[in-house]
Order: sequence, then structure tokens, then C-alpha cells
Amino acid sequence: MVNRINHIAIVVEDLQAALGFWRDALGLPLHKTEENPGEDVNIAFLPLGESEIELLQPMSAESGIGKYLAKKGQGMHHVCVEVDDIEATIARLREHGIELINDTPKVREEGTRYAFVHPKSAHGVLVELYELPK
Amino acid sequence: MVNRINHIAIVVEDLQAALGFWRDALGLPLHKTEENPGEDVNIAFLPLGESEIELLQPMSAESGIGKYLAKKGQGMHHVCVEVDDIEATIARLREHGIELINDTPKVREEGTRYAFVHPKSAHGVLVELYELPK
Repeated sequence: MVNRINHIAIVVEDLQAALGFWRDALGLPLHKTEENPGEDVNIAFLPLGESEIELLQPMSAESGIGKYLAKKGQGMHHVCVEVDDIEATIARLREHGIELINDTPKVREEGTRYAFVHPKSAHGVLVELYELPK
Repeated sequence: MVNRINHIAIVVEDLQAALGFWRDALGLPLHKTEENPGEDVNIAFLPLGESEIELLQPMSAESGIGKYLAKKGQGMHHVCVEVDDIEATIARLREHGIELINDTPKVREEGTRYAFVHPKSAHGVLVELYELPK
């Protein structure tokens, strides 16, 4: 039902500086970087085994990630787990009294369906659910 | 050189309550729980693909994890990545000016060698390196 960690998202002040650690020093490959104007963030994707490290740099102080950075500082932002059936997972979570940020999955351009569990229901961790396109 | 995420460690106030989310609601298997008197912490290990979720509950307020919890609250504490050769990885990190908490790997009972990268060198993330016993 839950298959793997899809990615860990890390908020950083400066993508290039953070790549100096993750890519240059530690040696992870950089798959791609991407601007996400919707969330006002630049993202670097670094595959690591069956998962990925995603580095997020806010492009404005007013963005969600910008506000997070100002409040909490750099660090791990959320963990994303892949599930077979996101509707069934959400139903099961709700049966257990777990609160989601969005009860109805949203859909990314490439077809990935996603939802976020509220950190207060996951004991302080922001957990993203992914169902990849079949 | 860096093979996979070995685990994500999450600090929680109450292991049983946190298992209510990760095991009971989300459906991860619980591999085992373990008391670690050396670090004054109880740990639950939940396999997830090639990685694990590790839940850490401090057993005293004076322990390292207890102080972390008091200061930062519940949440993701560190990410551990598996490497083939921890000595070579440490040497490479030092060549890039990365500071480690311990430059010389420590060894767990079962033979795993480990070291921690200082979060200030990893842009806010506490990164653990593991070299598993051959």
C-alpha cells in the first residue's frame, strides 16, 4: 500500500550553495532543476536510490516556502511517500481520525496525484502522499 | 558511492501515539522497537521500501534527543544515507570544506560505521552517513 519514500524536500536559502554540499561534496547526481512559478520556488532534484532529495529555494519572501524559511530556517520540510491508491489511503487515514490539508487529491501536470497530511496528525511531520500515474 | 536513504529519524513525544499514525493509520509494518540506553531513547523501526522510518522518543529530558524535543518540538531529526566507503566519503567531504561532528567513524554493535555531518555544512540538515558491515 505504501511503497517507498518518493522524496525528502529540504528548504534552502540558496540552491547553488546547497548543491555545493549535496552534489559536489556528497556526490549525488543532479537530475534537473526546475522553476515552479505556481509555488514561487526553484527546485533541484537529486536521485538517491529509489528516492530523491529535493532542494527548494523560495523565490520570494511572500511565498509559502519563503514564509517557512523566515520562520523555521533551513532544513527538512516534508517527506513524500508513494502509495498505490491515494483515495483508499485518504479514506483509511480519515477512519483513523487523521486530518489532511487537502482531503481531495490534487493533480500535477504529469498526472501525479498528491495530498498532504496535516503535521498535527503526523506528530510534527508534514507528510505528502503521492500516487504516480499508471 | 551514496546508495540510498537508510532511514529518516523523527523525534516524537510518545512512541505509541506516533505509531497510531505511521503503523495503524498509514499501514507501515513495525519491524521492532528497541531501547537504546546509551542515547536514552526508545526507537521504533518501520521499513518503507529500501529505507526505514525511525521514531525516536527520548526517555529523559536531559538526553540529547530530550533537549532537541524541548527546543525544536516534534519533527524530522536527521536523514541517514548509506555509502560504500565511509572513510572515502569523509575525506571527500573534508576536501570540500564540509565539517563533520565526528571525523572518525564510530561503530555500532552490529558493525555499522557511522558519522554525522554538521548541519551548518549541510544547510540546516543533520545528515548521518552509514557504512553497513560487509
